[in-house]
Amino acid sequence: MILNDIHSPEDLKLIPKKLLPSLAKEIRSKIIEVVGHNGGHLASNLGVVELSIALHRSFSSPQDAIIWDVSHQCYPHKILTGRYDLFSSIRMKDGISGFTKIKESPHDYFDAGHASSSISSALGLLSAWELEGRKDKVVVVIGDGALTGGMAFEGLSHAGQLAKNLIVVVNDNQMSIDKNVGSISRYLSSLAFSDSYHGFRYKVDRLIDKIPYFNRWLGKLVFRLKRGIKGLFFTNNLFIDFGFEYTGPLNGHSIDEMERVFNRAKKIPRPVVIHVVTKKGKGYSPAENNPSVFHGVGPFNISDGIVEKFDNLSFTENFSNKIVEMAQADSRIVAITAAMSKGTGLDAFSRKFKDRFFDVGIAEEHAVTFAGGIAAGGLIPVVAIYSTFIQRSVDQIIEDIALQNRHVVIVLDRAGAVPSDGETHQGIFDIALFRSVPNLSIISVAGKKDMDLCLDWAVNKSQGPVVIRWPKMACPSELEPFSVPVEPGKGVLLQATDFAPSISSFGQGEDSWRKKVLLVCTGSIFSETLRAARALVLDGIDADIYSLRFIKPFDEKYFAGIAKLYCGIVFIEDGVKMGGISEWLESFVHGSTETSFLKTALLAFPDRFVANGNREQILEEAGLSSEKIVNAAKELMRI
Amino acid sequence: MILNDIHSPEDLKLIPKKLLPSLAKEIRSKIIEVVGHNGGHLASNLGVVELSIALHRSFSSPQDAIIWDVSHQCYPHKILTGRYDLFSSIRMKDGISGFTKIKESPHDYFDAGHASSSISSALGLLSAWELEGRKDKVVVVIGDGALTGGMAFEGLSHAGQLAKNLIVVVNDNQMSIDKNVGSISRYLSSLAFSDSYHGFRYKVDRLIDKIPYFNRWLGKLVFRLKRGIKGLFFTNNLFIDFGFEYTGPLNGHSIDEMERVFNRAKKIPRPVVIHVVTKKGKGYSPAENNPSVFHGVGPFNISDGIVEKFDNLSFTENFSNKIVEMAQADSRIVAITAAMSKGTGLDAFSRKFKDRFFDVGIAEEHAVTFAGGIAAGGLIPVVAIYSTFIQRSVDQIIEDIALQNRHVVIVLDRAGAVPSDGETHQGIFDIALFRSVPNLSIISVAGKKDMDLCLDWAVNKSQGPVVIRWPKMACPSELEPFSVPVEPGKGVLLQATDFAPSISSFGQGEDSWRKKVLLVCTGSIFSETLRAARALVLDGIDADIYSLRFIKPFDEKYFAGIAKLYCGIVFIEDGVKMGGISEWLESFVHGSTETSFLKTALLAFPDRFVANGNREQILEEAGLSSEKIVNAAKELMRI
Repeated sequence: MILNDIHSPEDLKLIPKKLLPSLAKEIRSKIIEVVGHNGGHLASNLGVVELSIALHRSFSSPQDAIIWDVSHQCYPHKILTGRYDLFSSIRMKDGISGFTKIKESPHDYFDAGHASSSISSALGLLSAWELEGRKDKVVVVIGDGALTGGMAFEGLSHAGQLAKNLIVVVNDNQMSIDKNVGSISRYLSSLAFSDSYHGFRYKVDRLIDKIPYFNRWLGKLVFRLKRGIKGLFFTNNLFIDFGFEYTGPLNGHSIDEMERVFNRAKKIPRPVVIHVVTKKGKGYSPAENNPSVFHGVGPFNISDGIVEKFDNLSFTENFSNKIVEMAQADSRIVAITAAMSKGTGLDAFSRKFKDRFFDVGIAEEHAVTFAGGIAAGGLIPVVAIYSTFIQRSVDQIIEDIALQNRHVVIVLDRAGAVPSDGETHQGIFDIALFRSVPNLSIISVAGKKDMDLCLDWAVNKSQGPVVIRWPKMACPSELEPFSVPVEPGKGVLLQATDFAPSISSFGQGEDSWRKKVLLVCTGSIFSETLRAARALVLDGIDADIYSLRFIKPFDEKYFAGIAKLYCGIVFIEDGVKMGGISEWLESFVHGSTETSFLKTALLAFPDRFVANGNREQILEEAGLSSEKIVNAAKELMRI
Repeated sequence: MILNDIHSPEDLKLIPKKLLPSLAKEIRSKIIEVVGHNGGHLASNLGVVELSIALHRSFSSPQDAIIWDVSHQCYPHKILTGRYDLFSSIRMKDGISGFTKIKESPHDYFDAGHASSSISSALGLLSAWELEGRKDKVVVVIGDGALTGGMAFEGLSHAGQLAKNLIVVVNDNQMSIDKNVGSISRYLSSLAFSDSYHGFRYKVDRLIDKIPYFNRWLGKLVFRLKRGIKGLFFTNNLFIDFGFEYTGPLNGHSIDEMERVFNRAKKIPRPVVIHVVTKKGKGYSPAENNPSVFHGVGPFNISDGIVEKFDNLSFTENFSNKIVEMAQADSRIVAITAAMSKGTGLDAFSRKFKDRFFDVGIAEEHAVTFAGGIAAGGLIPVVAIYSTFIQRSVDQIIEDIALQNRHVVIVLDRAGAVPSDGETHQGIFDIALFRSVPNLSIISVAGKKDMDLCLDWAVNKSQGPVVIRWPKMACPSELEPFSVPVEPGKGVLLQATDFAPSISSFGQGEDSWRKKVLLVCTGSIFSETLRAARALVLDGIDADIYSLRFIKPFDEKYFAGIAKLYCGIVFIEDGVKMGGISEWLESFVHGSTETSFLKTALLAFPDRFVANGNREQILEEAGLSSEKIVNAAKELMRI
């Protein structure tokens, strides 16, 4: 094993060139083995093995900074920077992260996770270093998918203006999470394939590149000159327009070719784009053939690539079926996503209703405002985005949707606790971020029936914008009370007799209400709440559940009418406590004469970022597991 | 007056061509007169008079949609679409808005206000119309400044892919709010000035444009062919790369030339960019010479263009001085803004410390993450952005700043009530949006001394990220208690003897505490709170003030120690109630044994968007004026 000898990039530089293909093979085997077991990002990492080797041989990390956009493709980087031994723990609780993490290693400059931010981060770092007189290099690796994000353009535009030696490696695999979309992607393809990099263009390019820059000041002139000469031979190039030096496309699996270009790039006193073409999933045929399945994947069987699945229908799958069914009945329904058609379940819709489906690429801002435009045109857009990524669209939801009271339905998949992806991917801010937005309805659903009814309401009854959130998990089994029609502001009350009929025998005696506790939960943590309620009933404590359904609007009177029948309330919210619904609800209960006698407890995500783990581990850590709910209720009832 | 005969765009079409220059003159006079009186956006509107006339003669609004990015340049559009008579009321309470407003006119398709969203809105509208079989045209007018926003690129990229006949007029005046920056702007200039539009290029362009498209399907082929031919004559063009047809640059003050091109553009079965060059401030020399002063301006003297000013030093001016002073003492301080260097007061810094100043253009997302990079490089970035525009950077503040606990200072100008700009510009969401973000400190300052101390603390003491907010107004006069050193979580207590020594004679008797009311306010509404407290003291009610200073972290124990000495508390917050600090604080007071006896009232912005007005009118409407505070306190004290 060559890998046993590599504890840092310096070790890598000592490896003879002829052994590098074997090294690449070892890295691939390790990644396939570990991701097969732990789940994770497979295809993207298999694609950048040679690129990672070439980067770490050409640059000197950590003096030079190598910055990975999104950083889901950092596995080879981690293996090559002293984390080979820890690699089996990737994405597990207390293990190493599936993304770059400052605390993990000096080779990780930023905690990344959301796309398109790397150029901005890197340009800031480089600007600071330059002001400090430090001359180390800053290199960015960004995928063609992430380049569809507007933020990447803001960064490119500023970098072109500042004219520092920022080195941007565009990793072009013609995929973001799903098959790539948008003009920028088509544009890269045309660069990559219209002229072979072995052809005439390539030779001319190399020849022109050999003209030296001499120094920083003369460099400007030389840059213009070279640009002019290239203009005679080549057609348009976006990056050159932005003030970058452009080289490529290169073969992203040829370490030698990349090393040569990287070493040349260091000497150019201007920002440089190096366009590298890689194959997602390279070296593992199930992933090569199905890269979007193997983008972010759960554990799978390595020999055949069969991916494990939830036993029950997941929330995502239920949405996938339901939205197709609704669209069949109503031709006004249009679906929009931002490079998450598979993850959100919109892939079925996209196949059935090609004309009414829009995947805008990694561009959440545009996705939301585009939906506002669709609504202005009289159709009914349903936008599906992960909770964590909707953070990119806060301004658009306020200004372009809520302010104009557009009838747009925004569904948030992966709300609440999100397994294995770590701090950057938790869906715990959405309630706090959107509760303050006027005109917006916010719904958190608890299962299949609840989702179906709420989607129907959002599309057919609501006149204004609606946000509906659900978690990444299997739907809990159905309970009758969720069939209650959707009424704005009202939740779903489940009595002990509904979910524990064989055990429960409360409610007969005159004083029985005094023993009662009400568990008030957001829908996406209903499953854990239900388990807690059953445990409480088994222990002889009469516990009912009020699943909020509506976070906003909120029918205070209706809620008070229910709450006043209990002795205590435990609020359970799978979002941050600060600014959440429970924080306010608790104050409402204490402030109203009818309910001020009630004892209350509040369980929600505390005011810190959430460490990695599976759903159970995350909820346990945040004090939101079934046991914690049971304990809080017992504490409240002094038992 | 020709304008008296124009009640709709149809009337405009009947005006003989030779009268159009006189019409343009009348529109300019009207705009200068009204803006001189009401304040408003002057330079941008004077620049688009001919463009607006040409658009409304070439298209048929409201069947065709004309969509203005940001829409601060919509004054001529409003005058030409039946709002001439109402125009004197622009930006006044109950008057017409300074931006496009759906409720005002069918000619206004969107409520705009934040930059770079128009292409997304328009593309959505056009997509919906196409699905419905409607064939009307959709035209966007977007400035070169707004094109630096990443969202505009997301829109361009998607439009290029969808290949619909979206018509994008790029209004190139080489300014956004301030002098424009970034590669896209330099790029437009190179298009505009490297080849005269009267020259050879122009003729070739026109010739090629005459090749007809025949129909939609053949059109694709023809587009490629034309693009190929143009490639022989012209160098790079970003818009063509994105899949747009490009025409220009045109003289944006020649109605005739523009009309011809607009009419041709309607027939192209592809997205089209029409590049128009205009002069900001055209026709009013003070504005032509000083366009950034006359971008958004208060009332001014029309004859000499002298702008009215606050009597006292404003918060903005104080920041402007203070940050220069701090940067002189500490070379690690770097300042960043997003096309708001004048508005935030960073212009002085930008002149003194050219190397340490970065104006990234209209690109708030990039501005924040770029600051994170600067901090990662060991310097101390201060980012200055208006409260309303920081909504664009929520995800970046969460992921790229707070999660990584970067020492970045974000100052929010125009927090709370913002006069005259209407719903889209209020700074009332920042507290609710950021209170839920871990690691972040949030400060609201009440005046000069408070700001100075808090900036010192944020830069020199805090290890993590800090948000500091202040309003657009003159600083209230100084009061001694604000000299108290900054301690995280603690506010500033002002006793009646501090601000009304001549009147106040409380606090001697044994039972005197029972009469006391505490006014707890965010700093940016301290001025109104102080006025209320003085009035209460005059009326014999002992009122003290606790100016929160820290929204987060919050020293609960310290606060409870103060609060328990009072009989009642009125919370006053110039942000939305839902998710604000007061909502939580009130529940804290009720929930703590020490303070649960207290009577409380809460004044904050209600759950709706805020109608236009001056500061006093906005606060009155929201129930936050001094009188409302007095009434709430009296009600609480049952007097």
